Amino acid sequence: MNFYDYNSFDDVPGLIREALAIKQTNEVSNMGEGKTMALIFLNPSLRTRMSTQQAAYRLGMKVIGFNSSEAWPWEIESNAVMNSNKSEHIKDAARVISSYVDVIGIRCFAGLEDWEKDSADQLIHEFIKYATVPVVNMESAVFHPLQSLTDMVTIEETKTIKNPKICLSWAPHPKALPHAVGNSFTQWILNSGLDLTICHPPGYDLDKSITSGATISHHQEEALEGADYVYVKSWCMSAPYGKCSDAYNDWIINQDKMNLTQNAWFMHCLPIRRNVVASDEVLDSPRSLINVQAENRMYAAQAVISRILKSMS
Amino acid sequence: MNFYDYNSFDDVPGLIREALAIKQTNEVSNMGEGKTMALIFLNPSLRTRMSTQQAAYRLGMKVIGFNSSEAWPWEIESNAVMNSNKSEHIKDAARVISSYVDVIGIRCFAGLEDWEKDSADQLIHEFIKYATVPVVNMESAVFHPLQSLTDMVTIEETKTIKNPKICLSWAPHPKALPHAVGNSFTQWILNSGLDLTICHPPGYDLDKSITSGATISHHQEEALEGADYVYVKSWCMSAPYGKCSDAYNDWIINQDKMNLTQNAWFMHCLPIRRNVVASDEVLDSPRSLINVQAENRMYAAQAVISRILKSMS
Amino acid sequence: MNFYDYNSFDDVPGLIREALAIKQTNEVSNMGEGKTMALIFLNPSLRTRMSTQQAAYRLGMKVIGFNSSEAWPWEIESNAVMNSNKSEHIKDAARVISSYVDVIGIRCFAGLEDWEKDSADQLIHEFIKYATVPVVNMESAVFHPLQSLTDMVTIEETKTIKNPKICLSWAPHPKALPHAVGNSFTQWILNSGLDLTICHPPGYDLDKSITSGATISHHQEEALEGADYVYVKSWCMSAPYGKCSDAYNDWIINQDKMNLTQNAWFMHCLPIRRNVVASDEVLDSPRSLINVQAENRMYAAQAVISRILKSMS
Repeated sequence: MNFYDYNSFDDVPGLIREALAIKQTNEVSNMGEGKTMALIFLNPSLRTRMSTQQAAYRLGMKVIGFNSSEAWPWEIESNAVMNSNKSEHIKDAARVISSYVDVIGIRCFAGLEDWEKDSADQLIHEFIKYATVPVVNMESAVFHPLQSLTDMVTIEETKTIKNPKICLSWAPHPKALPHAVGNSFTQWILNSGLDLTICHPPGYDLDKSITSGATISHHQEEALEGADYVYVKSWCMSAPYGKCSDAYNDWIINQDKMNLTQNAWFMHCLPIRRNVVASDEVLDSPRSLINVQAENRMYAAQAVISRILKSMS
Repeated sequence: MNFYDYNSFDDVPGLIREALAIKQTNEVSNMGEGKTMALIFLNPSLRTRMSTQQAAYRLGMKVIGFNSSEAWPWEIESNAVMNSNKSEHIKDAARVISSYVDVIGIRCFAGLEDWEKDSADQLIHEFIKYATVPVVNMESAVFHPLQSLTDMVTIEETKTIKNPKICLSWAPHPKALPHAVGNSFTQWILNSGLDLTICHPPGYDLDKSITSGATISHHQEEALEGADYVYVKSWCMSAPYGKCSDAYNDWIINQDKMNLTQNAWFMHCLPIRRNVVASDEVLDSPRSLINVQAENRMYAAQAVISRILKSMS
Repeated sequence: MNFYDYNSFDDVPGLIREALAIKQTNEVSNMGEGKTMALIFLNPSLRTRMSTQQAAYRLGMKVIGFNSSEAWPWEIESNAVMNSNKSEHIKDAARVISSYVDVIGIRCFAGLEDWEKDSADQLIHEFIKYATVPVVNMESAVFHPLQSLTDMVTIEETKTIKNPKICLSWAPHPKALPHAVGNSFTQWILNSGLDLTICHPPGYDLDKSITSGATISHHQEEALEGADYVYVKSWCMSAPYGKCSDAYNDWIINQDKMNLTQNAWFMHCLPIRRNVVASDEVLDSPRSLINVQAENRMYAAQAVISRILKSMS
């Protein structure tokens, strides 16, 4: 039982309620006692690292953290002649780690060089293929389901109408960033039966197989009008893929733009470049959910690991 | 309840006795059970890292270690437009980490480029300002209170007269080092009502608001005369700030210099450059307390965390 | 009581049986409760890091991980004037770490620049000399005893005749690698009273004081003939020491070569460069023991730490 994306678990609405219940009762348990979770980071992390580790602790588990810099890069191509800079094949790494621990979390960002490769999400799929214990996606090239579960929990916690108007707005950023958070939020919102408008400049398309069903707009102000939730995220260009530019720096979310909305909640996964992606005024307003989202990461991770532990017993 | 410097806690003499009692009885407890401490290192560490982690373990806590290299640099200026190399604002980082753990230790060295900035100890003050759980200073730009508590414990443990003569001597070093240990030792000694002579070459002043009350000398041999404790530490120049030079390499502490003292105890916080800061002969003599100080770090950290845990219950 | 090489412990056959028994009964215990093991990595590690940490957890211990990149390089020469890039002397580091934890594991690879220095295994010997708690060798310049114990456990688990024919074959690799695994396997096999043939190209000698008693061959195919176990490992040249070349790339182990053996088991310590050291066909065949060896690392470490804990009580 892996947690790769929205479709990994049955009854996602129930999962969202479970995470909220953990928060409301501050539930801890010893259901993971005697079990160990490995957290494998091929890329940087603050929130995911700490919230997932603490979630595992709250279930009585031990944790083994591992940064790829502590060992060597992995080859992911089958049948590769490994005579360059990759010292171990992912099939061996996945099997070996599986033989020591009970659950594995792995983070493996998009390379941002080749759209086809990134879209195939090859690394995590290969890892899951060879792992012999449950694997949790801590952000792959395509999806970041722990973040999206958190976001759904946060929306569930705050929404006052059944079908809020949700707008996912692209935002400027000095660096080219992966599409995973944007893809993943879209997947979870659409599968939850909610309406979603995605606005971004031309040339910044997310994967159309994922956004199918959402309303796509290239006009930010129109898209923000009447929104109940504004979810903001930067991602890199789709063509040329992996690049970024400063041509759309006026897409920053400031209070003027928030004033176009229906007094919307502001959401962002963090880390955020203040006064580039969104203004301090917006981020520190009473309608900002950024700290709630961050805190909810812990309950979301705990709900996911709990389900996995239950499936093992 | 934070532990930033000498003035953070009431009854420091009691704290010193508590640390000593932990040592003498090898006390462990489960008072921290169900609680987690995050140890945030923006700079290298051996002793602080291991002694604080073990202190938390001895209180039944879980620990989440975090090196800044595992994520990204933090912006500390308010209202900054974050379009360069800082990916997250310290206000967000401090809040987020606070939402996962119960106590946070943080290490954030001086930058050694700007005296005003370093003297303001801005990073840890900003972190404390936004953190919503207790914060322990694991060496900031200005102070290193876990080291100073350790040093007081070590002096308490060894002194045979009520008012020993204590000399803090600057020492040469190939690299420019922060002032924190020198400042902090001075603050704790003076606040403990003990006499302190500080000797250093001209141009190596510590912060005068901290050293006020100590005797300052530029003559090492005079300062050492009759000392009961010689605390040795290198720090960088005050003018030009952040530089070092080899002009005073003869300030190394060797046995000839120790012979000027009242058979003094030798102290240093470690790590130490042997035969540059002090000679092997001195460091390995029966009057060297360097290993006792290092061991006492664990009891000092345990005493500090214990007080914090008590304040939370 | 340290675990440095084959000769460190009494009754190695008993130790091998203990590790196998831990595997067969999936034994966990709380014999290490209240004790902490530090795992000190001066070099990269995946298997050793995770298997040893999990072994300690399975004995109820706490673990403090430490990478040398988290602090600073250590000076190992006695009486050194430490005015260059080494910030702490190993004698101080070893004493300090010993004062916080109950058992220390340390990894310190060969430098591959000076045969005499590497052969003296100076770093770990200095560390052991100054440590005041038991030290476990997690791969030093000369030996890798946790791997060799694992290998003996794996052979014990699979062998069907009392005196199998064992061949250690050198293999090609794009990087110059240490001799430790080759040395160590040789030491354990010979001390276990088993016959060993070592084949490698000219100029790739292991330490003759260690290989004395083995049959040395420069003809790979002859050496493989009739083997029951083929243990494959690359290591760098002995003359000029620390170099590698692609002159012997045809020493790769493929199925044709395995067909020369007595349907031999294939062994390798991992990580392995697939299709350079050995072919996928061999590595993924039913006669490949690579995953069994990797898993056995955990039981081997647990057996070693158990013995050490018993010696302390």
